Amino acid sequence: MKATSRATSNIAFVKYWGRINEQLRLPMNGSISMNLAAATTTTTVEFDPKLEFDYIHPQSLQLNEKQATRVFQHIDRIRKLAKIDMRAMVATQNNFPMGAGIASSASAFAALTVAAATAAGLELDTRELSILARQGSGSACRSVPSGFVEWHYGETNEDSYAEQIAPPDHWDIRNLIAITQAEHKTVGSAEGNALVETSPFNAIRVQLAQESMKIIRKAILDRDFTTLGEETEREAIRLHVIAMTSVPMILYWNPVTVRIMQAVMTWRNEGLESYFTIDAGANVHIIVQGQDADAVETRLRAIEGVRDVIHSRVGNGAILLNEHLF
Amino acid sequence: MKATSRATSNIAFVKYWGRINEQLRLPMNGSISMNLAAATTTTTVEFDPKLEFDYIHPQSLQLNEKQATRVFQHIDRIRKLAKIDMRAMVATQNNFPMGAGIASSASAFAALTVAAATAAGLELDTRELSILARQGSGSACRSVPSGFVEWHYGETNEDSYAEQIAPPDHWDIRNLIAITQAEHKTVGSAEGNALVETSPFNAIRVQLAQESMKIIRKAILDRDFTTLGEETEREAIRLHVIAMTSVPMILYWNPVTVRIMQAVMTWRNEGLESYFTIDAGANVHIIVQGQDADAVETRLRAIEGVRDVIHSRVGNGAILLNEHLF
Repeated sequence: MKATSRATSNIAFVKYWGRINEQLRLPMNGSISMNLAAATTTTTVEFDPKLEFDYIHPQSLQLNEKQATRVFQHIDRIRKLAKIDMRAMVATQNNFPMGAGIASSASAFAALTVAAATAAGLELDTRELSILARQGSGSACRSVPSGFVEWHYGETNEDSYAEQIAPPDHWDIRNLIAITQAEHKTVGSAEGNALVETSPFNAIRVQLAQESMKIIRKAILDRDFTTLGEETEREAIRLHVIAMTSVPMILYWNPVTVRIMQAVMTWRNEGLESYFTIDAGANVHIIVQGQDADAVETRLRAIEGVRDVIHSRVGNGAILLNEHLF
Repeated sequence: MKATSRATSNIAFVKYWGRINEQLRLPMNGSISMNLAAATTTTTVEFDPKLEFDYIHPQSLQLNEKQATRVFQHIDRIRKLAKIDMRAMVATQNNFPMGAGIASSASAFAALTVAAATAAGLELDTRELSILARQGSGSACRSVPSGFVEWHYGETNEDSYAEQIAPPDHWDIRNLIAITQAEHKTVGSAEGNALVETSPFNAIRVQLAQESMKIIRKAILDRDFTTLGEETEREAIRLHVIAMTSVPMILYWNPVTVRIMQAVMTWRNEGLESYFTIDAGANVHIIVQGQDADAVETRLRAIEGVRDVIHSRVGNGAILLNEHLF
């Protein structure tokens, strides 16, 4: 009744932004991402008949009340499926700094899903695990399969899940995550997600995202970097267009965000091909081919206001580990 | 055959962005602006039978070849109307620094139109002068009438002109222009204007701009600052949405632009009500009521990367002066 899983975060080339069903976390459009080998969450779950309540283990990364409640609600889903009633002990660790602006809910809920389902004795396939992870955190469903991944938006719980487009060794693409200096409190992505329908441009963005799905899926299969990069950049801008035209307006960027965007465009004009994408936050994810990654990383680190750069290869999906956190 | 005019620049609450007719500079949507008392161009034109060519006077602000050609083409329009053939001497001066990123074509072509038309002996009313100025530079038509001004988009040359909504003393609104440090070469507004139809969001922006016209016209007449500010900010964001989603993408902002935007939003949350608007460039125009202007100016000047602040009241339209530049 004890299992441990490790899952990676992921970076979306086509973004998940806006939901048609809040409770089931069914998205307005499909999305495509690559898993990030360098950003992982490890989670151990043990169901124990001696426990009277669910607990976060003292050796774990400590979660605030809201985060812990969301974890325990997810474990409830798994208990219900497994038809068990035991309380659980949960421990979780990230290999990247918290609060740096790297979204950890994708890796966290993918690892939690696989660890808890296994500990509960469920035998689920990748699709079923992805559907479960999605209910904990939408983008977590993309961290269950390995490599380059597509989330089919779906109109019901069973139709909305992620699956692999290509394995990690299909293509050596890197994501350099530039962590930017925070000058202002950021707005949460949940808050932005809930406002998409106040933007007059949202319906068009959803249509365009579906077109981007086709273009980016093909670019990945063809290893066509220019198409991947150009379409990824456009798609990212459109997420921020929706945020900026939501009511009230959300501006996720800070000064360093814009400095990096301008720099990437300049490098590209100089022949060093890289592209940016930006989630609901101020950090900039640079997409680059393996052979250019070190050169771009050096330039990124030299930019004023860049606090750190995380250099990630394409990662695996959620896996089971034999060693437990407690 | 000699006349001198002074005209102000203007800041648009509803922006001119995209044209249905390039040559006549007929815009896709109407626009509304206030004239800027603090940013003026003074221009003297003399038609002289002894001149063999058109000249820029040696005591004038020196124009590059492209700028001078555009001035002489505008004088051709006026010669044609006046049915004269004499060549002209032109001198022009701005009371604000060139190259700081303040658009000077509005004040320049308004002053040039009034000076040249008067020197040519034409007797034109405000509407006719506005139509002429528009053909030199679109936004110049809004610098012909005084105070708060509306440009009717029009579908023919005669229907597209600006007229006053309210005189300067109707409402004490200030525009604080924050001049930001340039880190990258900026893209010209002409270049951006020509690309609007490559943005998938342009048709919606044009519709929304027409709605903004009604809202802002009424807010000016009612002296409703909150409505003016909120709608102006939204309308400005939409111009940049179109630029950022044009192909190729145009990002007019620099890091300081975003720092100021974030600061204005913070001040507002703290109770100091001001709003931003941004033309096709990186400078930020803060809109504020007279009683708050000094407090906001002090804060603006303290922001890292703000090189200068120009504090402007609502200005007059293009006027004739008795003193000439030569």
